[in-house]
Amino acid sequence: MEAYFDNAATTRCSDGARDVMARALSEDYGNPSSLHGKGLAGERYIREAKKNICRTLKINEPELVFTSGGTESNNLAILGAAMANQRAGMHLVTTKIEHPAVAAPMRHLEEQGFSVTWLDVDKDGLVSLEQLQESITPETILVSIMYVNNEIGAVEPIQEAAAAIKRKNPGTLFHVDAIQAYGKYIIHPKKLGIDLLSASGHKIHGPKGVGFLYIKEKTKVWPILFGGGQQKNMRSGTENVPGIAGMGQAAKEAYEMFQEKQGHLYQLKEAFLAGLADTGWAHFNGKTGRDSAPHILSLTVDGVRSEVLLHALEERQVYVSAGSACASNKPAPSSTLQAIRAGKEALGSTVRVSFCAGNILEEVEYCVGVLKEVVPQLQRFARR
Amino acid sequence: MEAYFDNAATTRCSDGARDVMARALSEDYGNPSSLHGKGLAGERYIREAKKNICRTLKINEPELVFTSGGTESNNLAILGAAMANQRAGMHLVTTKIEHPAVAAPMRHLEEQGFSVTWLDVDKDGLVSLEQLQESITPETILVSIMYVNNEIGAVEPIQEAAAAIKRKNPGTLFHVDAIQAYGKYIIHPKKLGIDLLSASGHKIHGPKGVGFLYIKEKTKVWPILFGGGQQKNMRSGTENVPGIAGMGQAAKEAYEMFQEKQGHLYQLKEAFLAGLADTGWAHFNGKTGRDSAPHILSLTVDGVRSEVLLHALEERQVYVSAGSACASNKPAPSSTLQAIRAGKEALGSTVRVSFCAGNILEEVEYCVGVLKEVVPQLQRFARR
Repeated sequence: MEAYFDNAATTRCSDGARDVMARALSEDYGNPSSLHGKGLAGERYIREAKKNICRTLKINEPELVFTSGGTESNNLAILGAAMANQRAGMHLVTTKIEHPAVAAPMRHLEEQGFSVTWLDVDKDGLVSLEQLQESITPETILVSIMYVNNEIGAVEPIQEAAAAIKRKNPGTLFHVDAIQAYGKYIIHPKKLGIDLLSASGHKIHGPKGVGFLYIKEKTKVWPILFGGGQQKNMRSGTENVPGIAGMGQAAKEAYEMFQEKQGHLYQLKEAFLAGLADTGWAHFNGKTGRDSAPHILSLTVDGVRSEVLLHALEERQVYVSAGSACASNKPAPSSTLQAIRAGKEALGSTVRVSFCAGNILEEVEYCVGVLKEVVPQLQRFARR
Repeated sequence: MEAYFDNAATTRCSDGARDVMARALSEDYGNPSSLHGKGLAGERYIREAKKNICRTLKINEPELVFTSGGTESNNLAILGAAMANQRAGMHLVTTKIEHPAVAAPMRHLEEQGFSVTWLDVDKDGLVSLEQLQESITPETILVSIMYVNNEIGAVEPIQEAAAAIKRKNPGTLFHVDAIQAYGKYIIHPKKLGIDLLSASGHKIHGPKGVGFLYIKEKTKVWPILFGGGQQKNMRSGTENVPGIAGMGQAAKEAYEMFQEKQGHLYQLKEAFLAGLADTGWAHFNGKTGRDSAPHILSLTVDGVRSEVLLHALEERQVYVSAGSACASNKPAPSSTLQAIRAGKEALGSTVRVSFCAGNILEEVEYCVGVLKEVVPQLQRFARR
């Protein structure tokens, strides 16, 4: 049996997404900027994707910008909003548990003279609404908070955060990195009070190399790439038609039978938790109930190094992640685990287990069985 | 018969590129940053693509950075080099016939306080080496000149330009936008004296949404996207594995039977020129011999508007471009045609015809026949 439990790192592209991409690559390959019918055929894929994605978010088509992925979406939101609004103030707010694709552009802006407040989180990885509200000043132009934390699956109080921000400063923009949340939650940014929302194709069984940014109408954001003026000048460059088409298809599929899939993910998670409940050596970071993300579990195993466990599992075709896996092969100490004060031991002994709706209960049972077999062996080995 | 002659706008993805992409999407879908075997499988596609591309350019693998396309490659080269080297000077040099993906970041830098010299070109679209050399000062940190002009197929004297630049200021970096040249010419940047070279996947029968930038070792360039630190921190974001794999395959294919393909393209071009030589109403902009790009022709037709001709051809399944087609549906007056002083009449009556190696002589003959049939009709119509 094989169990791919690294779906928060990336997912298998769905057959539907792959097939629409193949058509856009080989048949309807026109450049959407071309004025002839071949260009129009390419343009149609973009429109279809836009329609599908906008429907899931209940937003308007001019509010959607396609990017090269989650990192570019976050960079466009943060750098673009900071540049466009710097006259109103140079203060930004974010949290200590953001993905590097948010934290790094924030640090870049600090180097450019902006000041950034990095909010603490509690032991479950949740921001304090009071601290958030206190942090907002008349100079605060942007707040960026992730919807679902990529390492422990904490679900931030987005709607309440939006209300707290706007109460204090109605002009402050609110960006949400929803890269781990889109497709797992029903997200209506307008209802939630979100101005900017990032998502990525390859986390929802779409292709890598494509993402989107919701930019609420009238929100001032400057482009970060300059060129032919595509996408109403917000994102120059020939549109990645196959990638956009694949992501659109994946988005549509993600919200079909949505409740069933979300429920199934929670069942997998609960089975995993139950399977290890009586071991004594398995600890889970953050919340684990239905108030946590359905697809992410952060597992600390006493006395076993993350990488050792990862490779022992891999030998048995179980694929998990050490840390967040998004930090380019460098297993640096997790900022999220540090922020929740997980303890020195946990920092080196934690793996992330992340499901997709295509995973089955038997895979969880298999993985639990493998863990119960290998962990005691590895612990004995580590003690020597 | 159908004749797709808009290959400078975009090309059909090759079957080989599409097939390797399908495998990377559905089978070897791991995140290259994941430490387990699934991640390694994804990583292998990147290595293979890197090997194939580096071989065509005779460069070293650490010198290649993958991007989301030609626009990002040009932006990274220009913005990244300007930011990294601004202490050495704030003067940049480029030409009046660059693609918007070069011209727009240059204008952005002008707004940021850099000064830019915009070099004239002659009636064939060629820069003057003397003017180039005169423009270089001790404060010049970067020169950007395109290899092949996207509208008229002018081939700039890249090697001579590099020598002229370095003679005047050895510290000045030389960026070449090779988006219309890569795959059509054998390009060895080290031999030519190029420090930075941009290319795009979808111009060489690879996918849209992916490109690369050659950055000569020790060249100071700062990243423009910030995040997980992928690609040695030069370009954060999960690598677009399928796109990179597709581009790598396309690059390999482009340089197989290279001389034959280049010769075939010139034959198509020459047949096109010969076919219209005696019409009286067909004029070609810039050079048209083997000293021009093999795949691009700029055709001005007396008394017929570009868009009218484009649609008349389209009705007969002949696809060409009005202007450059890269400027997002807005047929603005071509900066290249203006720079070569093509005349007001030509500005509105020019189409670009661009071939790929898969085009055949019969398609050219068909297109020539269609032109000879429809142009006199359209001219009569326009006179009324």
